[in-house]
Amino acid sequence: MPPPSAAHVRVVLVRPSHRGNIGAAARAMKTMGLGDLWLVDPVEHPSAEATALASGADDVLGAARVVGTVEEAIADCGLVIGTTARPRSQYYWPSLTAREAAGRLAALEPSTRAAVVFGTERTGLTNEDLEHCQVLLHIPANPVYESLNLAQAVQVVAYELLVARSEPRVAEAREAPLATAAELERLYVHLEATLIDTGFTDRRGGPHLLRRFKRIFARAELDQLEVNILRGLLASAQQAARKPPQGAE
Amino acid sequence: MPPPSAAHVRVVLVRPSHRGNIGAAARAMKTMGLGDLWLVDPVEHPSAEATALASGADDVLGAARVVGTVEEAIADCGLVIGTTARPRSQYYWPSLTAREAAGRLAALEPSTRAAVVFGTERTGLTNEDLEHCQVLLHIPANPVYESLNLAQAVQVVAYELLVARSEPRVAEAREAPLATAAELERLYVHLEATLIDTGFTDRRGGPHLLRRFKRIFARAELDQLEVNILRGLLASAQQAARKPPQGAE
Repeated sequence: MPPPSAAHVRVVLVRPSHRGNIGAAARAMKTMGLGDLWLVDPVEHPSAEATALASGADDVLGAARVVGTVEEAIADCGLVIGTTARPRSQYYWPSLTAREAAGRLAALEPSTRAAVVFGTERTGLTNEDLEHCQVLLHIPANPVYESLNLAQAVQVVAYELLVARSEPRVAEAREAPLATAAELERLYVHLEATLIDTGFTDRRGGPHLLRRFKRIFARAELDQLEVNILRGLLASAQQAARKPPQGAE
Repeated sequence: MPPPSAAHVRVVLVRPSHRGNIGAAARAMKTMGLGDLWLVDPVEHPSAEATALASGADDVLGAARVVGTVEEAIADCGLVIGTTARPRSQYYWPSLTAREAAGRLAALEPSTRAAVVFGTERTGLTNEDLEHCQVLLHIPANPVYESLNLAQAVQVVAYELLVARSEPRVAEAREAPLATAAELERLYVHLEATLIDTGFTDRRGGPHLLRRFKRIFARAELDQLEVNILRGLLASAQQAARKPPQGAE
C-alpha cells in the first residue's frame, strides 16, 4: 500500500551551484514520492545536465519553480525547516534529526504546507537564510567527514519522510492551520511598527530586538488564529501609544 | 559522541557500470563512517571520474578491493545482505527494510564481518548473486518510481547503519562467531558429496535439492560451532553409506 501523499512537503534548493545536483535531487525526491521542487537563484535552469541526472524524474524537474529569494519560496508555508550540517543550537531554533523532522512533517495537519530548505553545496544555508526557518534539521553523520552531497542529503530526508508517512500517527490537533511565512512576515512588520510607536527598544537597538521576537514566534509555530490575536494586541498597543496618557491634559 | 565503529560492515558493489557511482558511493560511505569497499568486476578502477566524485573520500576509494566474483568479496563474511528494489519473498530469504537490516548489523557480535551487496545499476543483483546472500534488504520507496541511484542507495543504507549504531542495543548472544561464507561453502560441498554418497536425491534432481538445503542453512545464520556439528553429522552419514548394511554378508 502506498504511503499517504506528501504533496504538502516542498523541497527548496538555495543557490544550487552544480546543475547535476538539481537533477539528482529531483530524482531522489521522486523515488520517495515528493514532487514540489523550488530553486532559489540556481546556477542554471533548465539544463541538459540536470535533465540527464533526473533520469525518470524529468516531470519533477520540469515542474520546478525558480525564484530569486528564500522568502518567495516559502511564503505560503506554515512550517519551514532548514537543513544544517550539524546541530546548531546557537541559533535558538529547535534542532531535530532527519528522523525527528520527518515525524514532525508527517504529523502536520494536511492543509499546512511545509518546506525543507537545503543550502548551497559548499557552505550550506547562510545565517540570513536560517532566519526564515523555524526548525533546523541535521542528518547524523561521521563527525570527521560530514560532507553529504546535496542530492544525497535530499535523498536521506525524503527517505525518512516516506518511512514516517508509512507509520500510523495521530495528526497534530490545532484550532487553525499554521500561519504561513507571509502571514508571519506581516506580523513582524506590524510588530516592528508597534515597537517604534511605543518607543520600546533595548540598548542594542531595534533590529536585534526584532530578531529575538521573530525567533520566539517562529519557534512557537503560531497558527492563523494566534497570529490574529497577536495582531489585535499590537493594534491596541499602537492605539494606546498614540493617545495621550489618561488623566494628562 | 561518535557512534561505535562500523569497521565490520563491508559494502560490495557488483559490476558497477558507471565510474562516477563508484566514487559517489565511497563518499556516501565515508559520510556515515564506513570504509571497507569491495568492487566485483567494475567497469573500471581506478578512474579519474570516480576520484572526482569521491571528493574527500579518496582514502576509501583508494583502499577499495577489486575482485572477480561475489564469492570472493564475501568469503570471510558471516552475514551477507543483498539489496533488492522491492521485497522479494519468492527467494525464500528473510526480507528486511533498510532500517531493520541496519538494526541487525548493529547488533552483530563484533568479530563477525558482514557485507551489504549492491547490484549493477540497471538490473540489480541477479538470482545467482542472491544465492550468496542470507538476508535481503529493500529500501522503502515510491511504488511508481523506485529507481534510486546506486550511490544514493548506498547513502540510505549507510545512514541507517550510522543511526542504528548510535542507539543503545544488546549484542546478539552467540556461542561462536557466525560461520563465514567460505566455511558455509565448504559445508555445502560436503553436503553435496554426502547427498551423492548416500544416494539421496529428489525427483527434480540434485542441484535443485542442494539449493534448497543451502537456503535453509543460509537463513539459519549458522555459527561456526553449528557448522562443525553439521559436518560431523555428514561425515558419519558418509561413513555409514560406504559400509555394507549391518548384518548383511
